[in-house]
Amino acid sequence: MFESAELGHKITKAFYRQQVPDLREALLDAQIDLLQTRKFPVIILIAGVDCAGKGETVNILNEWMDPRHIETHALRDLTDEEFERPPMWRYWRALPPKGKLGIFIGSWYSNPLLDNVHGSIKNAELDQQLERIIRFEKMLCDEGALILKFWLHLSKDQQKKRLKSLEKDPATRWRVTDTDWKHFKLYDDFHRVSERMLRATSTAEAPWLIVEGSDPRYRYLTIGKAIQMSLRQRLDAPEVPNVVEPFPPITMAIDGLHILQTLDLKKKLEKTQYDEELEKWQGKLNLLSRHPRFKKISLVVVFEGNDAAGKGGAIRRVTQALDARLYRVASIANPTDEEKSQPYLWRFWRHLPRKGRLAIFDRSWYGRVLVERVEGFCSHADWMRAYGEINDFEEQLVRHHTVIVKFWLAVSQDEQLKRFNEREKIGFKRFKITDDDWRNREKWPHYEHAVCDMIDRTSTEISPWVLVEANDKHYARIKVLKTICRHLEEALGEA
Amino acid sequence: MFESAELGHKITKAFYRQQVPDLREALLDAQIDLLQTRKFPVIILIAGVDCAGKGETVNILNEWMDPRHIETHALRDLTDEEFERPPMWRYWRALPPKGKLGIFIGSWYSNPLLDNVHGSIKNAELDQQLERIIRFEKMLCDEGALILKFWLHLSKDQQKKRLKSLEKDPATRWRVTDTDWKHFKLYDDFHRVSERMLRATSTAEAPWLIVEGSDPRYRYLTIGKAIQMSLRQRLDAPEVPNVVEPFPPITMAIDGLHILQTLDLKKKLEKTQYDEELEKWQGKLNLLSRHPRFKKISLVVVFEGNDAAGKGGAIRRVTQALDARLYRVASIANPTDEEKSQPYLWRFWRHLPRKGRLAIFDRSWYGRVLVERVEGFCSHADWMRAYGEINDFEEQLVRHHTVIVKFWLAVSQDEQLKRFNEREKIGFKRFKITDDDWRNREKWPHYEHAVCDMIDRTSTEISPWVLVEANDKHYARIKVLKTICRHLEEALGEA
Repeated sequence: MFESAELGHKITKAFYRQQVPDLREALLDAQIDLLQTRKFPVIILIAGVDCAGKGETVNILNEWMDPRHIETHALRDLTDEEFERPPMWRYWRALPPKGKLGIFIGSWYSNPLLDNVHGSIKNAELDQQLERIIRFEKMLCDEGALILKFWLHLSKDQQKKRLKSLEKDPATRWRVTDTDWKHFKLYDDFHRVSERMLRATSTAEAPWLIVEGSDPRYRYLTIGKAIQMSLRQRLDAPEVPNVVEPFPPITMAIDGLHILQTLDLKKKLEKTQYDEELEKWQGKLNLLSRHPRFKKISLVVVFEGNDAAGKGGAIRRVTQALDARLYRVASIANPTDEEKSQPYLWRFWRHLPRKGRLAIFDRSWYGRVLVERVEGFCSHADWMRAYGEINDFEEQLVRHHTVIVKFWLAVSQDEQLKRFNEREKIGFKRFKITDDDWRNREKWPHYEHAVCDMIDRTSTEISPWVLVEANDKHYARIKVLKTICRHLEEALGEA
Repeated sequence: MFESAELGHKITKAFYRQQVPDLREALLDAQIDLLQTRKFPVIILIAGVDCAGKGETVNILNEWMDPRHIETHALRDLTDEEFERPPMWRYWRALPPKGKLGIFIGSWYSNPLLDNVHGSIKNAELDQQLERIIRFEKMLCDEGALILKFWLHLSKDQQKKRLKSLEKDPATRWRVTDTDWKHFKLYDDFHRVSERMLRATSTAEAPWLIVEGSDPRYRYLTIGKAIQMSLRQRLDAPEVPNVVEPFPPITMAIDGLHILQTLDLKKKLEKTQYDEELEKWQGKLNLLSRHPRFKKISLVVVFEGNDAAGKGGAIRRVTQALDARLYRVASIANPTDEEKSQPYLWRFWRHLPRKGRLAIFDRSWYGRVLVERVEGFCSHADWMRAYGEINDFEEQLVRHHTVIVKFWLAVSQDEQLKRFNEREKIGFKRFKITDDDWRNREKWPHYEHAVCDMIDRTSTEISPWVLVEANDKHYARIKVLKTICRHLEEALGEA
């Protein structure tokens, strides 16, 4: 795999000087087109063996292009804010918006590689992590990102020479650290694991380009041209209308039976029993949130449901039980323009809670497969892939000891009509019924279909959906509280 | 000052029960009006003596209002990302956007109070810090924020009783910490310093309301009503057109002499000398950025100047000398909608560098007193107050060991015309001259006037403006590099 990058590639000074001006011009040109059209974000990874010139290369790229529209990230130690979120959080928050370039030295590949070489994760786990990376990068590409991955390679001899020559020069001595020599001793291990990693993660959407690192001019020109050509090609490509439907249509079961029909919406709780249970479960939830081990986990509660199903009321019964210092309610409305310039899930990542905290989502990332699907706000392909992306997202949360509880609050069509009419009668603006609400109501069967698909495709063992019979508000609120308590008890080992 | 809050205020259960429903309705009503109109942000501080019920009160407020549009912040220990920025950074990033409420337990008052009581800052420094707080809050109010500050008070006897009764009850025992008892021993000191602090910071825009804390019902109703009434009053107030001009008009000196005229725009550097000096100063800058003590400071470089004065080129000569991992160029264009919903300076605070890093601003917070002033994008009052706000902002940076270097790149009208024409001839889109550029040019005297005022009012000892004669690009670039090096040397103690 590295053979071609050990041939001793070299570029003469004369050829380099002749090539650079045009390349710079073309790079700048592409960069400005990108900035003006804001068509897509560009994510450039510069990885490879130690001292193969990653930093120098990134400096040259910043010199050749307009550094005002490049964000360079050299992510090393986790800050404590990063440490308390899933590992990918730091990369999500560093993603470049559409129109800009983000260059990463040290990326999501660093830890899997190091951990495997140092033996802290076995090959099976490495493969698992690489598989997740592939899915992550595929999602980015599906969201429109251009990902360019460069691996700077040095043969063992070359690396040794390079370390020694850097050490000899007083101006560069600081660049060689003990870690570099330690890594050099592990060269063969690094070689083996890198190869496995590169092979596994060289996908059609985001292939690796391996570049011999020993000759700077060769390295700069190769990478510069690759970036320039990829950018230009992508900029000039005709906009493919994102409506290809290579998927079989999703249909309801032929006999018309579906999961929402299994709900007994007549379930009720009398007022006196409700008052009792409310006190009981709110007290319980309060205690659980102050459990010493709660500091080691976090909690994410998702509320989805029919319009007027009582999400707001249910959320209030939950927050009443909690110390306001611990929770944050994220009320999901239209994305801001900063959110629109990022992949779909970005605006949810930014609300993830720290350890010992909880976030309640009033509507959530499921909007993609509900309202956006039904109203045609995104393409068939977009919402079809969202199921997998959402499952991946939630899996990351769970792996990071986040407890996820997802509620679908279901009311019958009749009950919804009753509530709409009541709200219009009260006329109190906080309950104002909009034209949208009535329109959505007309699409009831479509929404029902979307909800059933959502449950089928995203109710997983680690993050199951809880369907709440919500025709009776008392019953629904108690079921919500009880469910959160049960999930928490289990997570805290108190069940 | 605390006399009225030691009278033993009490509310009967019956009266409370009678009052609460209407209050909640009115609070919710106001909150929804706020959310829908997005007129202003609401900043609520809940401060006061230990165990006076701050947490409980915040919980009640979240219960009474819609918690989906309230952000509660209990800021205690600094995260390491906060630690590496000026102290106010953590509050800036927690500010609520227009339309929302932000409740702070533990605010910018916490440290001055604690530090003075524990003797780590003297009264003079306390007063200085309070003065800065007043200026900060005034700026927030001028930007439209509604600030409501509540101080929960307990007499010494009441606090003792409260601590003991909390300790007695197994359900609340956890709330009393050693620190609480330690603070209780310092009650008289806290009392004295709090009084000084409240007196000094009770301003017309943001007065304190002192509330007796011993009776929860009294406390909740008092604070709830105060919030409701303030919100309602502010929501119903007619929009005051923000164009009052209580300031004397700023005029140019009667003899027409001004600071920009003192520049000798004929200054030049020949190509050969330029090449030599470029290498010398870039080398120097590179060394300085790798100086061990550089890790303890940060660097902010601001570029302002006439259109086509060569800002981009100068910035590139600076970044060329630096490791791309250390710097970030913030290119200031139109604010995003998230930025628009915040005070003016918010979008610059978010780009502040960590220790050991540098941020280069291609245009900056000075837009307020340049383009926004001249084009009438903000009111006279807005840009007039901006001078002071900017000085305060930069002072905070300097106090946090940030080196600030500010450049004004000046070209003559003739030279600008020459460059505009050249750019139109090249036709290469990256240099496209827009109609705006030509329009701005017609306003040359107005811009000149604004620049002179800016220099007069914001060139301070700690953060002076450096005027750069930029008719000759070589000369300008070397002056920029040299100046940055000199400032850095001084800061690193290498001068």
